[in-house]
Amino acid sequence: MSEGLLVVLSGPSGAGKGTLRPGLLAAFPNLRFCISATTRPPRRNETHGQSYLFWTRQQFERVRDAGGLLEWAEYVGNLYGTPREPVEQLLAEGRDVLLEKEMQGAGQLKEAFPQGVFIFVLPPSVAELKRRIAGRDTESPAEQLRRLQKATAELESLPDYHYDYVVVNDRLEDALDRIRAIIVAEHCRISRQAPGWVDAFCRRSEAT
Amino acid sequence: MSEGLLVVLSGPSGAGKGTLRPGLLAAFPNLRFCISATTRPPRRNETHGQSYLFWTRQQFERVRDAGGLLEWAEYVGNLYGTPREPVEQLLAEGRDVLLEKEMQGAGQLKEAFPQGVFIFVLPPSVAELKRRIAGRDTESPAEQLRRLQKATAELESLPDYHYDYVVVNDRLEDALDRIRAIIVAEHCRISRQAPGWVDAFCRRSEAT
Repeated sequence: MSEGLLVVLSGPSGAGKGTLRPGLLAAFPNLRFCISATTRPPRRNETHGQSYLFWTRQQFERVRDAGGLLEWAEYVGNLYGTPREPVEQLLAEGRDVLLEKEMQGAGQLKEAFPQGVFIFVLPPSVAELKRRIAGRDTESPAEQLRRLQKATAELESLPDYHYDYVVVNDRLEDALDRIRAIIVAEHCRISRQAPGWVDAFCRRSEAT
Repeated sequence: MSEGLLVVLSGPSGAGKGTLRPGLLAAFPNLRFCISATTRPPRRNETHGQSYLFWTRQQFERVRDAGGLLEWAEYVGNLYGTPREPVEQLLAEGRDVLLEKEMQGAGQLKEAFPQGVFIFVLPPSVAELKRRIAGRDTESPAEQLRRLQKATAELESLPDYHYDYVVVNDRLEDALDRIRAIIVAEHCRISRQAPGWVDAFCRRSEAT
């Protein structure tokens, strides 16, 4: 059995990474979403274990210091990280794994998983990004401003990161189609075929 | 305007490269098929300019010696080649170009167009390959045998070639889906975005 595919959706706040998730999970029965851990407080509509693992700073640091995170980063004052065990276990079982990461976290994951698929999700414009961040009534105006400033700074630093793909999230259905295509295509990459698959092909043929 | 995508379908005789073409051209209005030139005689159902440019060996050698071919190869006693001008012109106009090539020709094209997308189309099994080649009543039994021997030898040499993707052509619709996904995904590759697209994105945003 070959190892599963690690798919990382990344991009600034307001790019709409989370809105893409249900469509992708519905399209790929073998795809599992692994949630991140964070020290930021839950928004009104968020619950522990669904949106994030909401940890105290102390909990977070304990797991991190024991090597239990694949990556971690501080983002507008809060810690975010990816618990190692579920990701590694699912991949070893041949499942595909979906992660949603800000840029710094995605950069660290790329070093740990160079064979992963790193997709940068872009809002259609900075103006639309502003509207989306301002439209969230789950964050204070001060936090919205910080997120917007961070997002525009991140866009400018994009060329320093090593994403494989960029998808503009303008119409949700179009963005979903493109990400679905990326996942299907990546499974067809010759570099991802199990070693000896040509031999296996020929053996299977003799049995026919 | 950015340059178009070169998509090369390759694989042994009987893999079904030609059967995929209509579906791909229908799916991508910007995709153009460029035919090859060959010195082999037309099969009953083939016409000049549709299936191939059927050239005499003298014509072929004249064009080839004037640098008018992107690649050429001898295959089971006949010459095959890719006329340079239509491919280069369509790509420069921003069109995507589809080519169907045996393995040796695809290998040469990969050197000339490392940025091209090289897809190896595989029959579901060697037994099925035999059935498909034997099922063509347009070739003599002797030519069928030569093509079959060539095809199995080629499969064994596959690891020496540098294809990007492999697609098993078992059910036509599934194979088409996968190749369509590859073309959509390749257009999303960050390395294919026009230089300065981040700047352009930010400028477009200011205008909104």
